[in-house]
Amino acid sequence: MVIEAKITAPTIITLDHGAVRELRLNHPPANALSPQLIAALREAVVGAPRDGARALVLSGAPGMFSAGLDVPLLLTLNRAAIAEVWHDFYALLRTLASSSVPIAAAITGHAPAGGTVLLLFCDWRGMAEGDWKIGLNEVQVGIPLPPVIFAALKRQVGSRQAERLAAGGLLISVAEAASIGLVDEALPGERVVKRAVEWCQSLLALPPQAMAATRREARADLVRLFEQSLDREIDEVIANWWSDETQTVLKSLAERLAEKKST
Amino acid sequence: MVIEAKITAPTIITLDHGAVRELRLNHPPANALSPQLIAALREAVVGAPRDGARALVLSGAPGMFSAGLDVPLLLTLNRAAIAEVWHDFYALLRTLASSSVPIAAAITGHAPAGGTVLLLFCDWRGMAEGDWKIGLNEVQVGIPLPPVIFAALKRQVGSRQAERLAAGGLLISVAEAASIGLVDEALPGERVVKRAVEWCQSLLALPPQAMAATRREARADLVRLFEQSLDREIDEVIANWWSDETQTVLKSLAERLAEKKST
Amino acid sequence: MVIEAKITAPTIITLDHGAVRELRLNHPPANALSPQLIAALREAVVGAPRDGARALVLSGAPGMFSAGLDVPLLLTLNRAAIAEVWHDFYALLRTLASSSVPIAAAITGHAPAGGTVLLLFCDWRGMAEGDWKIGLNEVQVGIPLPPVIFAALKRQVGSRQAERLAAGGLLISVAEAASIGLVDEALPGERVVKRAVEWCQSLLALPPQAMAATRREARADLVRLFEQSLDREIDEVIANWWSDETQTVLKSLAERLAEKKST
Repeated sequence: MVIEAKITAPTIITLDHGAVRELRLNHPPANALSPQLIAALREAVVGAPRDGARALVLSGAPGMFSAGLDVPLLLTLNRAAIAEVWHDFYALLRTLASSSVPIAAAITGHAPAGGTVLLLFCDWRGMAEGDWKIGLNEVQVGIPLPPVIFAALKRQVGSRQAERLAAGGLLISVAEAASIGLVDEALPGERVVKRAVEWCQSLLALPPQAMAATRREARADLVRLFEQSLDREIDEVIANWWSDETQTVLKSLAERLAEKKST
Repeated sequence: MVIEAKITAPTIITLDHGAVRELRLNHPPANALSPQLIAALREAVVGAPRDGARALVLSGAPGMFSAGLDVPLLLTLNRAAIAEVWHDFYALLRTLASSSVPIAAAITGHAPAGGTVLLLFCDWRGMAEGDWKIGLNEVQVGIPLPPVIFAALKRQVGSRQAERLAAGGLLISVAEAASIGLVDEALPGERVVKRAVEWCQSLLALPPQAMAATRREARADLVRLFEQSLDREIDEVIANWWSDETQTVLKSLAERLAEKKST
Repeated sequence: MVIEAKITAPTIITLDHGAVRELRLNHPPANALSPQLIAALREAVVGAPRDGARALVLSGAPGMFSAGLDVPLLLTLNRAAIAEVWHDFYALLRTLASSSVPIAAAITGHAPAGGTVLLLFCDWRGMAEGDWKIGLNEVQVGIPLPPVIFAALKRQVGSRQAERLAAGGLLISVAEAASIGLVDEALPGERVVKRAVEWCQSLLALPPQAMAATRREARADLVRLFEQSLDREIDEVIANWWSDETQTVLKSLAERLAEKKST
């Protein structure tokens, strides 16, 4: 029941299923989080309730939800631009965490690193069955996991699993993600967006004030992460980005990606 | 091994199994929590250790543990009386949380809303297998879940499940309740009270001071919920009760219940 | 690939598997935690990074990881000596929690009481399949579970399971321990040390600064337990030790152990 489909930005397709708006990441080939996509997604989430959307579905392409931060592109940026990227990424996470309307993630495929970060701040997560990888592999690519993201992971899967996943930089299977609660449901890929829309509709069928107040209470700990000053944390994240280790590992990763593309 | 059976109040049957006292809710047809049952239950829990009971079992009728707050009755009460009900209900929860003796819930059947609230503040929960429903469906009936109850739910099942169950106002099956830890065991209905008594006896067989001190430490977070001032929270719960949305939904619920009774 | 094997102390065998150092408890018959073993283990953990070890494996004997505190021996000690034991035991736990290098527990067999305490402060826990028992049965032997240990248990398995296990003083099976997350993996006994070494190697293969920073963030709550003053807590633990109940239960336990030995 798609009523309206339009392109609001080059990188995001907006599809309205009644009062539920789907924001489909559309930045081929990997839905990598470029500065433009980060800004566009934040704007789309902020703007949706103003357009009358009462819930959101965040989806990607079949087989690829989002590969996370666009490392090859970010490696071309100078210090000022990198600082802006990280401030904007934190602003996006805050926007997702404190959204006045529920957000369901329809994880249509791979969701490593930044792909997993996004879904931690949503209300619900359904993931397509298949040979997709999910997890916070930041450590594998030389990036210490930022504390706010670790806190959201811990809230999602508990202290023990959060320590195991984060320190090991683990990518895991869909089945394991469902079994430890990193996602709420695993289901056939062709049904994942539909189920996310239905999940939103089930919330919208409830008495709205009681639902909104209870949802607010349940997510207060997530919102609270952003109510302290995060300037120092973000400064440290940025400083880490420019460390020798991180730069070396990221450059080697970008080279591997470039070789893969050219073969 | 029932040594003594007497009726201490019209609404609760007291059965002593040695040092373990069973408090059986006996307010047909649904063990709905009327102001009288709330007061009687609190009194029974407070009084039991004075009578020599060293542990408690809280049980209901086969197929019906408790349907939660007695909405049709509460809808007839004025503002002063509603305020008293909520203050008394919070006092009951505090009494359960800080009980000096262990309390096992023998969930003999349905336990929606207030039925589930009670068991969150007990030490252990066994539930009868069968087609019974359990969960905090407050949102479904227009009541924002009170923060103290959300905190107890989160302690029981973790942040992710608590958010999912509370915001969605979900009623779930016995199997799901056991699988996510909302109850500790699912077992045949005819054994649920017996098992709860045995669970109590297993605690009473331990060195009493070591058990009591460790139990106190383990439940300190639950007791701490009541050590802050809750006046403001209770005021808000009461204000919500009188909101248009809540009154409308509750009245429509009461009408459906009345129709069901008359057919 | 054992490069070097030497005996650093009568009670601990040190085996270097490349950069991963195995500390094998070697205090027959039960690897009971005597004051000497506690001191030796702490020294070995502190000293390992200075010797170039980049990760540690803590193992025991086949069928017996550690039986916990050496109760028969401790019962012969005077007040000053008991106070020293508890201060040293807390110092050991702090050393494990704040170790600059990852520690994997290879739980080769039984791990009751103090045996379980040790592994709660490690980074990862693999346990040998078999008819071994694990759990914090302190309450069964008359010792209230110290708050720092309860907090570590809660971090490991969540509030509900921590309350159940601690207040009941439960010893559980390997399968149950794996299912509730008290251990991370159950595997054949002959593979448990090898797997612990491999787990360490998987962490050491990661970019070292990103791994170390993320590991620090993930374990900050565990380290924080020791950053408050624990003098009062330790004083209470020591006072409990000399209580009538504890002394009576421990003496009866020691007698049973002596009888078992003599038959």
